[in-house]
Amino acid sequence: MKYYIGIDIGGMSIKAGVVNENGKIISKGACKTFTDKHYSIMVKDTFKLCEQILNDINLTKDDISGIGIGCPGTIWSDKGIITYANNLHFHKVPFVKEFKKYWDTEILIDNDANCAALGEYLFGSGKGSDNCIFITLGTGVGTGIILNGEIYSGKKGSGAEAGHMVIRINGEKCTCGRRGCWEAYASATALIRDTKRAMAKNADSIMNDIAEEHGKVSGRTPFEAAKRGDKAALGVVKKYVKYIGCGLVNLVNIFRPDKVMIGGGVSNEGDYFIDMIQKYVNKYHYGGRINPKAKVVKATLLNDAGIIGAASLAMKSNTK
Amino acid sequence: MKYYIGIDIGGMSIKAGVVNENGKIISKGACKTFTDKHYSIMVKDTFKLCEQILNDINLTKDDISGIGIGCPGTIWSDKGIITYANNLHFHKVPFVKEFKKYWDTEILIDNDANCAALGEYLFGSGKGSDNCIFITLGTGVGTGIILNGEIYSGKKGSGAEAGHMVIRINGEKCTCGRRGCWEAYASATALIRDTKRAMAKNADSIMNDIAEEHGKVSGRTPFEAAKRGDKAALGVVKKYVKYIGCGLVNLVNIFRPDKVMIGGGVSNEGDYFIDMIQKYVNKYHYGGRINPKAKVVKATLLNDAGIIGAASLAMKSNTK
Repeated sequence: MKYYIGIDIGGMSIKAGVVNENGKIISKGACKTFTDKHYSIMVKDTFKLCEQILNDINLTKDDISGIGIGCPGTIWSDKGIITYANNLHFHKVPFVKEFKKYWDTEILIDNDANCAALGEYLFGSGKGSDNCIFITLGTGVGTGIILNGEIYSGKKGSGAEAGHMVIRINGEKCTCGRRGCWEAYASATALIRDTKRAMAKNADSIMNDIAEEHGKVSGRTPFEAAKRGDKAALGVVKKYVKYIGCGLVNLVNIFRPDKVMIGGGVSNEGDYFIDMIQKYVNKYHYGGRINPKAKVVKATLLNDAGIIGAASLAMKSNTK
Repeated sequence: MKYYIGIDIGGMSIKAGVVNENGKIISKGACKTFTDKHYSIMVKDTFKLCEQILNDINLTKDDISGIGIGCPGTIWSDKGIITYANNLHFHKVPFVKEFKKYWDTEILIDNDANCAALGEYLFGSGKGSDNCIFITLGTGVGTGIILNGEIYSGKKGSGAEAGHMVIRINGEKCTCGRRGCWEAYASATALIRDTKRAMAKNADSIMNDIAEEHGKVSGRTPFEAAKRGDKAALGVVKKYVKYIGCGLVNLVNIFRPDKVMIGGGVSNEGDYFIDMIQKYVNKYHYGGRINPKAKVVKATLLNDAGIIGAASLAMKSNTK
């Protein structure tokens, strides 16, 4: 059995896991991300974390066949450079080179959504679908594209940013500076915004009670209320599905993948939610009755997608 | 020197040419498309046309290393089937199999925009750009995607339909049944619609005079008037550039190609037009100052794109 390490770098914490060749995590840990310190500190912390998760299961560096790193932002994989990661205050950071000072082995790095897409393709909901698309609905909309079994990310890894595909020209402002991006409608952030707007408009909606009960408005609020028959909430959910579906149909028309995998917290709404999206995609994809349908599924690696996805980068390279 | 035949099937006519391995047409001809007859008639006509263009330059079937066919609609290349072509009234037509009754040689078939993209990549404006996108602005918006030097067209060839990417949810009605597709804003048809609207609103615009002079409103009308300083016309042109740019930036963010090549009648507006699109793309693509810019260029094969593109399908396969 071969073992790999997958590292998932986030704005709040760095997670790492030892992953076996079947995509199972056999040891994992996490440490805090200090975004205000020099990147070399983060690299050192990451290395220590790796030592720790190996130590926990009595493995050594020699037992590891490769390391994969997933990181938000634009990652130039070929060079091992984090070109730009806003949340981490990273600009042209040679992460891999720095890490090799501690551990000189095969290390691969890619965007976190790309890693998650690869993980889902190899070990999760995308198994067997050589052309599939992963989207994660969170603070933003992250997308990872698998074509012919490989991550597609464009020149210097700066593509696969379908979250920044405009679906409403002149629409809602997006964090990227453009208006009307898919992310500005289909992210959990956008859902919460639209929920708050609907609550303000509909004082009698039970969304208000649910939010009060939980102490906040979350992506779950409109779903919970809609399931209890609240009209305004159902309106919010339907609109949200339409926004997600609109961008997905665009991607289906462009890529015509076998499968579209949906991850992120909102995907926990399960079949109720996924079925609505599937119906929308089937109804509006180009060449409706004639062209092959893209299957919409819930991503299955959940919170482990980051670690398994990152490890699968190394695995794929190692088994080539 | 090797020779290939490229066949360009259109709703009005079928064009065919003998193309040498340098991408030059050395003989060509055309015949009428009879869309009201059985497809076997069209195949027979196409074969006769091939015989004629060979005869014209004293070549025989044995001199030809392969045949490529470009056809509008959804083409399932692997099977040689035209899955669906609205203008030709074709539905699941086994074109290649039928053609082989007359000439049993290597025959490839693909969507016409995909062929044009390949032709531009091998012999035109895309030379040397292994990742590039071709768009043609005509009755609709056709798109062809070259990734790693190969046509990408998705499952059963039913992808690469970026013309049917919604850029304005709930927007203008598109021929595909959806609302707000890129095609409904960036096609020449849409430009003419918007020009007519602006003319009706601005009776004193010289667009009205130009249209009267030419006996019709065309895609050239607003450009000609804008160049003469007409404000309303400049408004139409700027909006049109914005629509084209919006969809292009979406594609750039997804694919991050080296180059975007623009074809179709409107592209004859030249540098004035191309420069405006380039500026828009540079301004709005994701990661503005950091990410690599996509170069916007005018496609160069013009009216020969269909024949050369189709021939290049056969060429590429023959030289693999």
